[in-house]
Amino acid sequence: MNSPDTLKKLFAPQSIAIVGASETIGKIGAIPITLLKKYGYQGDIYPVNPRSHTIQGLDCYASLADIPTPIDLVIIAVPAQHAYTALANARPGMVAGAVLFSSGFAEIDEAGRIEQERLSALAQERGIRLLGPNCLGFMNIRENTFATFSPVAMNHQIPVGNIGVVSQSGAFGAYACSLMLNRGMGLSSWITTGNESDIDVADCIALLAADPHTDVIMAYLEGCQDGEKLKRAFIAADQANKRIVITKVGRTQAGAQAAASHTAALAGDDAVYDALFHQYGILRTHSIDEFFNVGQALSVWRHPTRNTGLAVMSLSGGVGALMADDAQEMGLSLPAMPKQAQNRLLQRVPFAGTQNPVDVTGQAVSDPTLFSDTAHDMLSSGQFGALVVFLAAAGSSDSFWPHIERFAESMRASYPDIPFALVALLPEPRRRALEKLGCLTFTDPSTAVRTVGALLKRNQSISSTPPSISSTALPLLPTDITTLNEVESLAVLNEAGIPSAPILIAHSATQAAAISQQLNRAVVMKILSRDILHKSDIGGIRLNITSPEDAITAFQDITSNVQSHAPAARIDGVLIAPMIAGGIECIAGVHRDPVFGPVVMFGLGGIFVEILQDTSFRLAPFDETEAISMIQETRASQILAGARGRAPADIEALAKALACLSQLAYASRDQIESIDINPLVVLEQGQGVVALDALVMLSSPTV
Amino acid sequence: MNSPDTLKKLFAPQSIAIVGASETIGKIGAIPITLLKKYGYQGDIYPVNPRSHTIQGLDCYASLADIPTPIDLVIIAVPAQHAYTALANARPGMVAGAVLFSSGFAEIDEAGRIEQERLSALAQERGIRLLGPNCLGFMNIRENTFATFSPVAMNHQIPVGNIGVVSQSGAFGAYACSLMLNRGMGLSSWITTGNESDIDVADCIALLAADPHTDVIMAYLEGCQDGEKLKRAFIAADQANKRIVITKVGRTQAGAQAAASHTAALAGDDAVYDALFHQYGILRTHSIDEFFNVGQALSVWRHPTRNTGLAVMSLSGGVGALMADDAQEMGLSLPAMPKQAQNRLLQRVPFAGTQNPVDVTGQAVSDPTLFSDTAHDMLSSGQFGALVVFLAAAGSSDSFWPHIERFAESMRASYPDIPFALVALLPEPRRRALEKLGCLTFTDPSTAVRTVGALLKRNQSISSTPPSISSTALPLLPTDITTLNEVESLAVLNEAGIPSAPILIAHSATQAAAISQQLNRAVVMKILSRDILHKSDIGGIRLNITSPEDAITAFQDITSNVQSHAPAARIDGVLIAPMIAGGIECIAGVHRDPVFGPVVMFGLGGIFVEILQDTSFRLAPFDETEAISMIQETRASQILAGARGRAPADIEALAKALACLSQLAYASRDQIESIDINPLVVLEQGQGVVALDALVMLSSPTV
Repeated sequence: MNSPDTLKKLFAPQSIAIVGASETIGKIGAIPITLLKKYGYQGDIYPVNPRSHTIQGLDCYASLADIPTPIDLVIIAVPAQHAYTALANARPGMVAGAVLFSSGFAEIDEAGRIEQERLSALAQERGIRLLGPNCLGFMNIRENTFATFSPVAMNHQIPVGNIGVVSQSGAFGAYACSLMLNRGMGLSSWITTGNESDIDVADCIALLAADPHTDVIMAYLEGCQDGEKLKRAFIAADQANKRIVITKVGRTQAGAQAAASHTAALAGDDAVYDALFHQYGILRTHSIDEFFNVGQALSVWRHPTRNTGLAVMSLSGGVGALMADDAQEMGLSLPAMPKQAQNRLLQRVPFAGTQNPVDVTGQAVSDPTLFSDTAHDMLSSGQFGALVVFLAAAGSSDSFWPHIERFAESMRASYPDIPFALVALLPEPRRRALEKLGCLTFTDPSTAVRTVGALLKRNQSISSTPPSISSTALPLLPTDITTLNEVESLAVLNEAGIPSAPILIAHSATQAAAISQQLNRAVVMKILSRDILHKSDIGGIRLNITSPEDAITAFQDITSNVQSHAPAARIDGVLIAPMIAGGIECIAGVHRDPVFGPVVMFGLGGIFVEILQDTSFRLAPFDETEAISMIQETRASQILAGARGRAPADIEALAKALACLSQLAYASRDQIESIDINPLVVLEQGQGVVALDALVMLSSPTV
Repeated sequence: MNSPDTLKKLFAPQSIAIVGASETIGKIGAIPITLLKKYGYQGDIYPVNPRSHTIQGLDCYASLADIPTPIDLVIIAVPAQHAYTALANARPGMVAGAVLFSSGFAEIDEAGRIEQERLSALAQERGIRLLGPNCLGFMNIRENTFATFSPVAMNHQIPVGNIGVVSQSGAFGAYACSLMLNRGMGLSSWITTGNESDIDVADCIALLAADPHTDVIMAYLEGCQDGEKLKRAFIAADQANKRIVITKVGRTQAGAQAAASHTAALAGDDAVYDALFHQYGILRTHSIDEFFNVGQALSVWRHPTRNTGLAVMSLSGGVGALMADDAQEMGLSLPAMPKQAQNRLLQRVPFAGTQNPVDVTGQAVSDPTLFSDTAHDMLSSGQFGALVVFLAAAGSSDSFWPHIERFAESMRASYPDIPFALVALLPEPRRRALEKLGCLTFTDPSTAVRTVGALLKRNQSISSTPPSISSTALPLLPTDITTLNEVESLAVLNEAGIPSAPILIAHSATQAAAISQQLNRAVVMKILSRDILHKSDIGGIRLNITSPEDAITAFQDITSNVQSHAPAARIDGVLIAPMIAGGIECIAGVHRDPVFGPVVMFGLGGIFVEILQDTSFRLAPFDETEAISMIQETRASQILAGARGRAPADIEALAKALACLSQLAYASRDQIESIDINPLVVLEQGQGVVALDALVMLSSPTV
C-alpha cells in the first residue's frame, strides 16, 4: 500500500478533478486550473462546482459523482467543513488520490483533528491516497501538473530540473520555490505535505527516489512520526544513487520548543536526527541559504569524488588565507600543490604563493591564462577533489570575462568529475552561463568553501548499510520483572558480547569471607538488589577489600546500611568481584527513541558526560566501523587515543562492545527499555574492555 | 606626527598631482584623472608626464619640480624603479602626502624591501606622508577625490554614506567596493594600505574616527605591527561613538600560515586578536558576507539598544523555529510575548503561536495588519532590543507590498531605536525602499537573526576602558638573573596581590625537621632552584610530610635526587609549605605577544587546558569585571560555579587575582617575559585563591 507505485497516479495523474473550481483568477479553486491550462497539462481537467456550467472554458460538473470516468487526482479546494462531503461524493473505486488544500483540521484544534481522522478513514476505506490537508499541494514540473494554489508559478515558468523538493510546511515550500526561481534552479517535483494525514515526507522521498528525472532530493522537515518508513526511504534513495539534503528545524531547545508548539508531529530528540542523517549519508543543512547552496551544488555534482583534498586559488593572498580558515574549520585538507607545478608558477610569477591556497596575485589580470594553467597543473596531480577560485574584482571586468568563460570550459572538459567553483560578482547572464557549464558560482568566498566542502565531506560520511541482525540471537529475558539486578544485567550484556569481570554472590558474611579467601586479591563488594539504583548513596558499596576479615566487616556494613536506608528493597545478596586497576572509565547506554527506536549513547565518564555533554549517538544496529566513528566524534576520544603520555586504550575492543550493544538493543527492541553501562572501563590496547556496573530495564509486560 | 591631522591634507587634498599621468583611458595613470574630472573634484589637478603638454584636457607638467604651488597629494603611478626619482623631484616642503600605486617593493623580494625603505626614508626626511606602495589608493567619496586606479568607480557612481572602509589588501578592497555598490551601500571613504611603509590600518581607523561623516569603520586586516597604535585608534573611535567591524584572516593554523606566506606583516597569535577585539568592543566577522551584513546593519543602527531580547515573528511556524535555533546558538534570549499581547493575538488567530517566535500563521495574508499590530504589541512591552520578521512568499506579492511598506514605516516611527529586519524575497526597488526607511532586509532567515544578533550582542561586549595602572607600584625585580626561583616568583606575585601559602626554606635536614615540628601539620617539600623547571620529574617534590622524621628523610631524598639528576643546578634550599586541601586547580599565565604586549591566559588544570585547550585570553591590564568574563568564557567555569553538587568556588577572589596578575604584567611589561602559576588553587566561596607554584621569567638584561 505504501510503495511509490500507489502514489504514481496521484503525482503523475492523467486526469484531474478540482472540487471548488472557480472562474475568479487568483482564487484557490482557480489557480490550479489556470496553471494547468497555461503550461499545457496533457491530461483531462474536470472542474467541479454546482453553481457553474463551465469554468475557465471547461465543462463543469456539479459533483464528483457526475464525472463518468476514473479520476487519478481530485484537488479539494473547499473549506474544511465541506471537504468530507466532497470526497464522499466520489464514486467508489473511481478516485486514486486527493490533494486537500483546506486548512482548519488537526493544526487548529481537537475538533479539527477528529474531522481530519474521519476524512482519512473515508479515504482509506475507498483506497484513496491523501496529500494534506492544510498543504499547498504539489507540482510535477516535467508533466506540467500543477495541483497547487501557490501563486509562484503564475508569474514565472519554473524551469525543469533534476531536484525534487519536499516540504512539510506550505509557507516554507512557497518561499523555497521563489528562491529557487530566483536562483534559476530547475525542479522535477515540488511537494508540500501539510498535516500528513496519509502521505508524509518519507513517502515523497521514496517516490522521488523512484523517479528517473530526480537526482537530488531536498527535504524540509519539522518532525517525523514513522522512523522506519523514513529509514526505508533513505535506503531506497541511496540505492538509486540519489543524494538527499535535509533542513530540519529544532536543533536547539528553543527551536524544538517552537517547532513542538507549531506542529502536532512528535519532533524527537535532535541528536537522534543527527545520528540518523550521519548513518544514512544525508547532508544536513542548518540554514535556508545553505540548503539551496548545497542542493544546487549536488544537482551538478552528485557523484562522490575520489579525493577529498580541496584546491584553493586566489588572486588575493589575504582572501586565500580566509578561505583556508574556512576549510580548516570544516576539517578539509589542503594538500600543497605538487613541486613541479609550484616551480612552473614561480617562473611566471616569482612572488606567487605556491602552496595551497595558491596565490596567483594580481598578475592574473594582465596574464589571464595564469588561472587556467595553474589549475590544470594542480588538478592533474590527482590529489584534489574540488577547486575553488577567487577572482576578486576581475570577475566583474568585461575584458576578463572571455578568459573566465574559457577557464570554466576547460575545467569542465578536462575534469568533469571535480567540482569547480568561481567566486566573483557576476552579472546574472554570466552567472547563468557559467552554471550551464557546470561551474558553481558564489559571491562570498567562505560560502563557496563551505558548499564545496559539504560535497567533499559527503564522500566520507555515507555509512555502509546497517549490518544485518538476523544472526543476533535474542537473549532470554525475564517477562515478570522490569528491572534486572546488576548480575542479571551484566549477564545479558555478557551474552551479547560485552565482557564483564567474574562475579560471585555472597548471601552471608561467612560466604563473603570464603569468596575473599578463594579469590585472594583485592575485591569490590556491592549490594545486589533490583530496587536500589544508587548503591553508593546508601553505603551499599565497599572498595578494595583485601582480606577475609575485611570481607566480613564489609558484608555486615553493607547489609546494615541497606537495612536502615532501604528496608523495603528486595535483596539478592552481596556481589563480590575483583577490583579492576587502571583503564579509562566510559559510559555507554541505550534508550528507546519514540520515533527511531533504540539509540546507543557513548561518552567518557566524569566531567566529559556530566559537565561537557561530550557524548555521541547512533541508531541501533551498527557495525564496528560506525562505532569507531562514534567514538572519534567525542572530544574526549583523544584521551583514549593516548593523549598526555598515556598508553593508547583498546579502542577496537570498545568499538566491538558498542557494536554488540547496538545489536543487542536492536534485536531486543521490543523488550529492552534502556541499558546503562557505567562504568565501561577501557583497558590498554590489546587488553579489552570491562563493564563494571550495568542496569538493564525492560518494558512493562503488555498483557 | 601620527595624528589624523597630518593625514588630512593627503586624504582631503585641495590639489593633486599625478606622476605618470596618461591620456589612454583605462591606464593606471589615466583612471584617477578620469574619475576626478567625471565626478567633479573641486581642487586643482596637475598631470605630470615629460612626454605630453596636455592630458585629458589639462595642462601637463614634465616633473613635480615644475609645479609652482604646494601640492597636498601626489599620486605616483609609475613603475617601482622610477618611483624614488619621481618623489625626489618634488620641491622640498611643497608636497604633503603621496600615494604609491606601484608594486614591486617589499612584497616581492629583499631588493624591493630595500628600495621601499629608501623611499620611505626620503618621504620622512621631506615630511611627506606615504600611502602604499603596492596599493589601490583611496577614494574620499564625499569630496569626489579619487586617488585610485581601481576601475570600480568608472562604471558606477558610488553613493555617499557613513561607512569608511580600510583594507590592507587592494584585491579585497576592490572586491569590497564592488559588493557594496551591488548592495547599494554608501561610503564616506575607501582606503587600501598595501605595504604600509608609513600609513597603516590603525592610522586610517584614527583618521575615520575623527571624520564627522563616518559612523561605521569597516577594516580588513591581515596583520598588525604596532599594537599600541591600533589600540589607540580603537579608543579614539569608541570615544567618537563610532562602531568598528573587522574581518581578520588567519583564525586557523592553515589560514595563519597562508596569511604569513602572503604578507610580510607579523600576524601575531589569533587568540590575542580575539581578546583585543573583545576588550575594545570591536565586532569581528568571519566571512565577507557577514562583514557587509553587519557593517550595513551598523550603518543604520549604530547606537546600542537598551534591551537584548530578540523578538521573532513569522508567518511560518517552522521557519520561526529555525530562527529560534539560530538565536539560541548565538546565545540570544527570546523572551515570551507579554500575556496581554498573546491574548489579543489569539482572539484574532486562535491557532497562532504566541510565545516567541510568534507565529501569526498564513492568516496574515488575508489579514495584513496582523504583523504590524502584533509587532506593536510586542515591542511596546519594552522587553525587546530588536525584531526580525519572516514574511515567506508573501514578501514577493504585489498586493501585499503596500502593507509591508506601511508596516516598516510604522515600526521606524514608533521604535526608532529598535533594529528591525524583514526577511523576504524582494525586488530590488522594494528592497531599497525598505532600506531607506531604516529597515534591514534579508532573504535568508538565519542570516537575519545572526546579523541582528550581532547588534544585540555588541551591546554586551564593549569593555570599559582598561583600568588606569598609574597606581600599580612596579615590583622590585632583580636585574642580574632571568629566572626567578619559586620563592622569589611567589613573592613577586604576593606583592602584586596574588596570595600564596606561607613558605619556609630549609637548608639542612635538621632545619627541615624543625620547620616540620614548628608547623605541626602536613607539609609539602620541594627543591628550590632557578635551574630546575620540572621538579617532580627528577624527584624534587615530596607531598604530605607529617612528622619531623619524615621531613628529614624527605630532605635527604630530595637533595640526593637532585644531586644525581641535576648536579649542576644552583640550589637555594628546600621549600616547605603547608599542604592545601581541596579547591580546584587552575592555571594562569602571562606571555608577551610581540605585537600587543603582555597577554594573560586562564584555564582549569588537567584535561581542560591540556586536552581541550579550554583557555581564555585577555590583553593586560584589565579589571575584575573583565576577569569574570574571561573566567566565564571557558567551558570549565561550570565546575567553578558549582556543577556536580560541588560548593561554588571563590570566583571573585579568582577574578581579583587575574586582574592583579594583568596589572603586574602590564606595569612590568619591559622586564617580565612570562609568568606561569600552576596550580592556582581556587578554594570555596569566601576562602580565596592560593598560588601553589609559580615561575616568573625576566627579559634578558639589555646592556
